[in-house]
Amino acid sequence: MSYIRGFASDNNASVHPDVLSAISEVNTGHQVGYGDDCYTMEVSKLFKSVFGEATETYFVYNGTGANVIAIQALAQSFNAVVCARTAHINVDECGAPEKLSGCKLLPIETNNGKITVSQIKQYMHGFGFEHHVQPKVISITQASELGTIYTLDEIKAIADYVHGLGLYLHMDGARLANAAAALNCSLEDTTFKSGVDVLSFGGTKNGLMFGEAVVFANAKLAENVKYIRKQSTQLHSKMRYVSAQFKALLSNDLWLKNAQHSNKMARLLADKVKEIDGVTITQAVDSNGVFAIVPKHIIEALQQEFFFYVWDEHTSEVRWMTSFDTQEEDIEVFVRKLKNLMTNL
Amino acid sequence: MSYIRGFASDNNASVHPDVLSAISEVNTGHQVGYGDDCYTMEVSKLFKSVFGEATETYFVYNGTGANVIAIQALAQSFNAVVCARTAHINVDECGAPEKLSGCKLLPIETNNGKITVSQIKQYMHGFGFEHHVQPKVISITQASELGTIYTLDEIKAIADYVHGLGLYLHMDGARLANAAAALNCSLEDTTFKSGVDVLSFGGTKNGLMFGEAVVFANAKLAENVKYIRKQSTQLHSKMRYVSAQFKALLSNDLWLKNAQHSNKMARLLADKVKEIDGVTITQAVDSNGVFAIVPKHIIEALQQEFFFYVWDEHTSEVRWMTSFDTQEEDIEVFVRKLKNLMTNL
Amino acid sequence: MSYIRGFASDNNASVHPDVLSAISEVNTGHQVGYGDDCYTMEVSKLFKSVFGEATETYFVYNGTGANVIAIQALAQSFNAVVCARTAHINVDECGAPEKLSGCKLLPIETNNGKITVSQIKQYMHGFGFEHHVQPKVISITQASELGTIYTLDEIKAIADYVHGLGLYLHMDGARLANAAAALNCSLEDTTFKSGVDVLSFGGTKNGLMFGEAVVFANAKLAENVKYIRKQSTQLHSKMRYVSAQFKALLSNDLWLKNAQHSNKMARLLADKVKEIDGVTITQAVDSNGVFAIVPKHIIEALQQEFFFYVWDEHTSEVRWMTSFDTQEEDIEVFVRKLKNLMTNL
Amino acid sequence: MSYIRGFASDNNASVHPDVLSAISEVNTGHQVGYGDDCYTMEVSKLFKSVFGEATETYFVYNGTGANVIAIQALAQSFNAVVCARTAHINVDECGAPEKLSGCKLLPIETNNGKITVSQIKQYMHGFGFEHHVQPKVISITQASELGTIYTLDEIKAIADYVHGLGLYLHMDGARLANAAAALNCSLEDTTFKSGVDVLSFGGTKNGLMFGEAVVFANAKLAENVKYIRKQSTQLHSKMRYVSAQFKALLSNDLWLKNAQHSNKMARLLADKVKEIDGVTITQAVDSNGVFAIVPKHIIEALQQEFFFYVWDEHTSEVRWMTSFDTQEEDIEVFVRKLKNLMTNL
Repeated sequence: MSYIRGFASDNNASVHPDVLSAISEVNTGHQVGYGDDCYTMEVSKLFKSVFGEATETYFVYNGTGANVIAIQALAQSFNAVVCARTAHINVDECGAPEKLSGCKLLPIETNNGKITVSQIKQYMHGFGFEHHVQPKVISITQASELGTIYTLDEIKAIADYVHGLGLYLHMDGARLANAAAALNCSLEDTTFKSGVDVLSFGGTKNGLMFGEAVVFANAKLAENVKYIRKQSTQLHSKMRYVSAQFKALLSNDLWLKNAQHSNKMARLLADKVKEIDGVTITQAVDSNGVFAIVPKHIIEALQQEFFFYVWDEHTSEVRWMTSFDTQEEDIEVFVRKLKNLMTNL
Repeated sequence: MSYIRGFASDNNASVHPDVLSAISEVNTGHQVGYGDDCYTMEVSKLFKSVFGEATETYFVYNGTGANVIAIQALAQSFNAVVCARTAHINVDECGAPEKLSGCKLLPIETNNGKITVSQIKQYMHGFGFEHHVQPKVISITQASELGTIYTLDEIKAIADYVHGLGLYLHMDGARLANAAAALNCSLEDTTFKSGVDVLSFGGTKNGLMFGEAVVFANAKLAENVKYIRKQSTQLHSKMRYVSAQFKALLSNDLWLKNAQHSNKMARLLADKVKEIDGVTITQAVDSNGVFAIVPKHIIEALQQEFFFYVWDEHTSEVRWMTSFDTQEEDIEVFVRKLKNLMTNL
Repeated sequence: MSYIRGFASDNNASVHPDVLSAISEVNTGHQVGYGDDCYTMEVSKLFKSVFGEATETYFVYNGTGANVIAIQALAQSFNAVVCARTAHINVDECGAPEKLSGCKLLPIETNNGKITVSQIKQYMHGFGFEHHVQPKVISITQASELGTIYTLDEIKAIADYVHGLGLYLHMDGARLANAAAALNCSLEDTTFKSGVDVLSFGGTKNGLMFGEAVVFANAKLAENVKYIRKQSTQLHSKMRYVSAQFKALLSNDLWLKNAQHSNKMARLLADKVKEIDGVTITQAVDSNGVFAIVPKHIIEALQQEFFFYVWDEHTSEVRWMTSFDTQEEDIEVFVRKLKNLMTNL
Repeated sequence: MSYIRGFASDNNASVHPDVLSAISEVNTGHQVGYGDDCYTMEVSKLFKSVFGEATETYFVYNGTGANVIAIQALAQSFNAVVCARTAHINVDECGAPEKLSGCKLLPIETNNGKITVSQIKQYMHGFGFEHHVQPKVISITQASELGTIYTLDEIKAIADYVHGLGLYLHMDGARLANAAAALNCSLEDTTFKSGVDVLSFGGTKNGLMFGEAVVFANAKLAENVKYIRKQSTQLHSKMRYVSAQFKALLSNDLWLKNAQHSNKMARLLADKVKEIDGVTITQAVDSNGVFAIVPKHIIEALQQEFFFYVWDEHTSEVRWMTSFDTQEEDIEVFVRKLKNLMTNL
């Protein structure tokens, strides 16, 4: 039985056919494990062409793995990581960053999932004071967990401020493709050219089966990453199968097409639901997420046909995510059901 | 370019075609993430039928992940894990067990990778003495890292002893299939019916693309595992793709056929190389590994065509692993090359 | 050279003469180390008579040690600890709780350093959801870091709520003596009779040289504490010297007299400075701390003679602590200096 | 009741009167906490005069604290620490090094508690191989846990070898004073002039009440130590009371006199017991410990009057430690009792 394509998460989607083909293509003969195979070497070069020749890329299993490796590479246990309170590292990783890095996370309350220099400043004190954790990493999510997007100028402003203090800028790019597509910028412009030091580059939410990449601005920052990755349980043996997926994603603009499509579907969904009385869109629909307040009483009935997550139980805010395989008819069926439920309140 | 099928590791092999087909079959529509999909539910039942109805299974990414989750489920940071000095957890996981669990590993020197009750006893003291780590887990590897196999009686003897002290028995079953095939026993007999409390059940080395399972003897032992798995970065979002692989492996005796084949190939390889003057087999060829001492001077030349690992530089001992896709001709080519090098010494 | 008695912290004070005498008294002959000496056994009984016969007490070196041991005894690494944002565990321990326990701290913004049931509720969701840390401990500080005090009813309300959810209540009682003195309640009433599960009981800020106690409501909660204490580097060898100090503190109401005195001195200080134009007391002076906003320009000059800490640079709020050895003349000299500086602005 | 002075451990001794006097002397008025007091500044200079002007000293509570801070300063979690199997960090700290540093400890089997370059070499491989922990610190104990002593040449040989590989040499000097006294060398000669990078310098076993020092060869190595010390719960607030003790210890050769005395008492004890039939001294009596095999049946009776530790239950080897306050009559009484028990076997 195949479920209806819903809006629970872009990781509920299937694997893009081109990605599956790429996997099949490398499924022949033996390859040295752990990344010393010919495919991984080739894709490493591809990453340099996409993100900059100075960058260094390490493949991992998932986003949590990517983030905790990035933090460990940049910080020691007495350091702190500043991020939005809604950041994935802060609320959706079951404390993995604290456990693996030992660092404290310093949360910033935001309206839209994005943090600003002036908000970061509240934590920029106590340097040299041994009783306080020492801030070392600022982590931003692009696109944010609320579907909003940092402009390049906003990223640069944070990067400049952060670097001026000797700190590092980490970007959780689980949905970087959606952000770059929306900004109409290259992946490099959106990241390293804007001052990012380390990037968690997501694949799974944009059509891969498994695999994310941690990309470092330069080799110096990546100095110990191979040990950190292994010790953090994130080193895959049959690495060619990760590499092949990323090759597919970065070839023929697949990453871009997938992202553009899901972004477009989110706008379509938002346009349709905002016409419904009693539904209020709560966030700018910059990428592939739609956040809306709906009457509490219709949620359960709607979830029964289309599973999705309630974002805030108190305000009755829900989250609907589109993905590379969302079809217009999926939206139509969903909106029709929603309208029905609203009418019969 | 496709490399020659060599003998470096069973994880240098490709993915079994049935496994790839199973992946393709589930690649349709949306599924709830993180294991709440219909395929994972189905495969969970399959695991119960294979390992026992009381067992509980959690899928993870890799063997290191499986092992550190098992240890965390059984022990607290002031506990210790007793294992062979050659155990994967002790020498091949870059300290992941210590980092994630905080536990000390207490190594036992062995001749063949297997530990015995009388060897374990050396560490069974200091209980209640706060200066000493408190032993809580005994970890055995089946098949061992040296290719040898515990008989069911040997496992039961350790289990009985360990349980009598209130400790737990963990089995690292990265190559459990090879062991069960060699013993001509069921997977359940080789594990939970012999007293194992928690099993790391390997898939990748037996034909999967990625994915291992942590199987608990009962629900009580698995009480907190879902949080431990997530916090240890080992929870996959698109879980159906792991479940599908395991379904393929456990269906139609694929696990057994693959294991029987690689075991057979190892015996063939051993039979051929032991005839060569100057090559000495050092371990019983119980499963799919062949350990041999060869002249130091031929190693590099042989590795250039067939990459493999030197097990002990001092003694010039090397390891050759066969896999489900090893062909007789691979062995013939390899042995011919080896003979040539030996002759031309 | 002996510094002027200032108001930087109650840990800038010396050691109470009775405490020093008690140390000298036990300084004879040999005693078994690590707490198995006759003095420690005796003082353990004294603690039971003070805090309740069911309680179990473990001595440690300092407050940070006490707090991280309490958290480790109550929680696993995937759990969370809810506390005021201003809590010592959150802002003054350089991330020790996160590093040693692996737990995330969930901070509550407060006006006065005290948290309420309704504020705690914001974090009481996501139970059973593996992506979220699982709240397990609520930590309150009595007296709070802002010098305010929880009433017994306030503590009971939190304890009842917390216990109803299967969680634990930890009290950081670095200044418990000051709180109990102000409440005119016994130490037991203020803690275990009000529902506290584990207490960090401070000695150093009330006249000891070194040493704090972790007191558990019952033996079950303390099950593994001896290992946790040792592994957390908090087990002292020559334990009699800690025990002797606590015996002095708990004998002849020394803890109470010291606390009453420092509380009285804080009120005196507050009464005098609140008369000064341009100085605003910002918190209730419930115990031995005075928080005040003063003109930014006088701070440095005042600190040169009497070192103290700026609490909030943005608002120019400072903290003045009194201690068991504060004399009225110390306050007079300090207030005179402050008045002078204010006048000459 | 005061126990008889026995031979259980040098930390069963009392506090030297000069140390207690030094504490009393600083017990006046207020001092800034956490080491910014005038006494600590003065003693820091004294440490430079004793250990070398380039060194940097940090006071901590106890030996376990000193050792785990040293390791954290020198190594990251994917590193390993090589030490004797009998090292305090390996067997007597309940896994604190693993928990706080994340590092694996690599144990070396020895006959006398001392390790050699050729033994260290067994672990000096796998550099750059991400599956293996990366050795970074060699830790030696001076005097060793078996009472033996490294000559300066032996230390230098290890230091040279270790530094040649880019690794660090840590010395656990819980009984450094005894070693230096026995060698008739200065503390600096025995440590930094022989190539030690970081020293745990013990005070408690040589007459202090509490307090150890971590001494770094230079400021670069100590770069982050203040944060590590605080996060490891080892920063004392009323630091002057630690500093005063160390001032007493390093003044008037008190450290040397105490060590010379306890060394002499150990030799006296050894000379007397070796004459007894059925008692076999098992280790060189280089410092203040005597190791001996005695008949199993007399142990309990002897312990009832003089508590001491059994070192090895299998061989019936026991440990007797002397201390600065051991008197000749203590030895006489003990030897008489022992003789009696032996005669009545």
